[in-house]
Amino acid sequence: MTFKVTPWEVTGKIDYDKLRRDFGAKLIDKELKNRIKKNAGGLHHFLSRDFFFSHRDFNLILKDYEKNKGFFLYTGRAPGGDMTIAHLIPFIFTKWLQKTFDVNLYIQIPDEEKFLHKQNLSWETVQEKTREDLKHIASLGFNQDKTFLFQNSEYIKNMYPMLMKTAKKITNSTMKAVFGFKDSTNIGMSFYPAIQMVPTFFEKKRCVIPCAIDQDNYWRPQRDIAEKLGFYKTATIHSKFLPPLTGVEGKMSASKSETAIYLSDNEDVVKKKVMKYAFSGGQPTLEEHRKKGGNPDIDVAFQWLYILFELDDKKIEKIREEYKLGKMLTGELKTILINKINNFLKEHSKRKDKADKIVDKLKYSGKLAKEMWNKTI
Amino acid sequence: MTFKVTPWEVTGKIDYDKLRRDFGAKLIDKELKNRIKKNAGGLHHFLSRDFFFSHRDFNLILKDYEKNKGFFLYTGRAPGGDMTIAHLIPFIFTKWLQKTFDVNLYIQIPDEEKFLHKQNLSWETVQEKTREDLKHIASLGFNQDKTFLFQNSEYIKNMYPMLMKTAKKITNSTMKAVFGFKDSTNIGMSFYPAIQMVPTFFEKKRCVIPCAIDQDNYWRPQRDIAEKLGFYKTATIHSKFLPPLTGVEGKMSASKSETAIYLSDNEDVVKKKVMKYAFSGGQPTLEEHRKKGGNPDIDVAFQWLYILFELDDKKIEKIREEYKLGKMLTGELKTILINKINNFLKEHSKRKDKADKIVDKLKYSGKLAKEMWNKTI
Repeated sequence: MTFKVTPWEVTGKIDYDKLRRDFGAKLIDKELKNRIKKNAGGLHHFLSRDFFFSHRDFNLILKDYEKNKGFFLYTGRAPGGDMTIAHLIPFIFTKWLQKTFDVNLYIQIPDEEKFLHKQNLSWETVQEKTREDLKHIASLGFNQDKTFLFQNSEYIKNMYPMLMKTAKKITNSTMKAVFGFKDSTNIGMSFYPAIQMVPTFFEKKRCVIPCAIDQDNYWRPQRDIAEKLGFYKTATIHSKFLPPLTGVEGKMSASKSETAIYLSDNEDVVKKKVMKYAFSGGQPTLEEHRKKGGNPDIDVAFQWLYILFELDDKKIEKIREEYKLGKMLTGELKTILINKINNFLKEHSKRKDKADKIVDKLKYSGKLAKEMWNKTI
Repeated sequence: MTFKVTPWEVTGKIDYDKLRRDFGAKLIDKELKNRIKKNAGGLHHFLSRDFFFSHRDFNLILKDYEKNKGFFLYTGRAPGGDMTIAHLIPFIFTKWLQKTFDVNLYIQIPDEEKFLHKQNLSWETVQEKTREDLKHIASLGFNQDKTFLFQNSEYIKNMYPMLMKTAKKITNSTMKAVFGFKDSTNIGMSFYPAIQMVPTFFEKKRCVIPCAIDQDNYWRPQRDIAEKLGFYKTATIHSKFLPPLTGVEGKMSASKSETAIYLSDNEDVVKKKVMKYAFSGGQPTLEEHRKKGGNPDIDVAFQWLYILFELDDKKIEKIREEYKLGKMLTGELKTILINKINNFLKEHSKRKDKADKIVDKLKYSGKLAKEMWNKTI
């Protein structure tokens, strides 16, 4: 079976182990998990359930932490479309890492990336989407004095010297090889990856980037040039993809509304989408399902509960068991998921509606934000 | 005879008429000169002596001026080396245009361009050179309320949306074709021309750029995309090159010290350089010179007087005549030039040493500067 993974396209049934090996990344094995657990005092379910499964140099991050040299976190989100629950995954994990290790976090909002990539997307639309995204992100509860949330179009001046130093070290050949750019690509797109690399140089400590594995491309040229610029090669920690509602292949895509739950979907929409589109591992008839049972491995409702919504290990294993045995029906499983999603979105919306002040704090007035505005990189 | 003209290299004996035709630019003919004269109340010697000789759409600039639609001026200087007297030429002409037509002027200081182009030039060196260049330029006497002098690294945030809109419209193919960039070119260099185009979009009026003809490349992609972005194709007005001291081929180069007079050269250095290097159109022996006379067309001292230092038409023609007749010797001609240069540099240095306040006015506190800092392009 073939699959394809680039920063812009994920299709097919992904063989994560092959992908990781092709990328030259390392498995988060038992030993590494134990070491994280020892330092963190526990494991996030994304780790214990192998959803974050691969890394580069995360062992060195732990080493620096153990030696009190410290490290910092960096992640981001490119505005342009509407945010889905899948977009929250790196942020949720990043929040856990920040809280656990008490480190600085930089969140880049590249409000030019999608504009450059999408022919018909206007600058003004991206700016509108950005305002929404900032509130979604700010409402997640990051440490307000150790997080700097910044839009490129606002912070560009402070990054400019480092951006030029970075761009000088990267050739068009590299961009073509890594991103598949062509001569017909616009010069904004070919230049943009340098902008995404700059935050890895915000501190003279090791940086770790939690991201879905399709974003790994961005960091390979960074790792080629970082030491020449006097900085560390960035570490990364990679997640798998949240499967789309419509089946366990590919990834949830904000541009295909039937595959995704948006953060702005209301209760009815969530219910209808899950009932109508969520790919089921159940049997065609009630009778058959009771007899043969369902397959949780290909059941999207189960997978979403496992990855995002049922954090209690005993409960999720009970659901798995009952579903496999045919005791639990597809409709029952979907109802559990619908309730979980709707509870989550209700709470999230409440926080988001009151997030303006937090956005301000993370962008401008928190301790780290203030420091960053007084500094040229 | 072959010659080569690119924004980075000028070699050989230049056939300006061929060059202009190859570039597809128009001659500044008698008719256009008369029209300028009528509007300006006179002609700058750069025009009457055909040193600014070629243009694109300068007739439309005059048309807009005549119809009270107005226009604006844009020029610049990329720091990295030491400024020579040749670097002042576009500024001197621009100053005359600004004064004559009473229009806004934007002076871009791309303090990243040379950094990106020159392997061994550091960001910090360019910043040092920038501080000197700003003073040289500010001391020339532009209208302090109608001139905005800006460094890209400082003004980048205000230009960012327009920069992205510009970059989105230009492909790598275009950059390769226009500038000869290759896959081995760094992504900063291939992206940079977009930054140089943005100031042509600072106002919704027609822009005219006074520059040496080797800079024409930069404006051709601008003319391809300007109307798609809702702006005017920029007009340009092109000068020839100030010949290097060492002969009338190529252009004065700041990186070859024997070909150039720097703005920081002292009296002795000027004297020595002119005496030693200035290519002479005189005869090998005194006797022969008195008999056959000198050739002012290939004599660099004469050419510099003609282009830059002897503005009195009667006086320059008298010098030409006496030199051709052998009445004036090479040494005498060179002495006239040396005195002119040293007087000029003495006055220039005095103004430059007191230019800090003017730099501040042109960059931040003058009327136009203030407007520009309050505006996002």
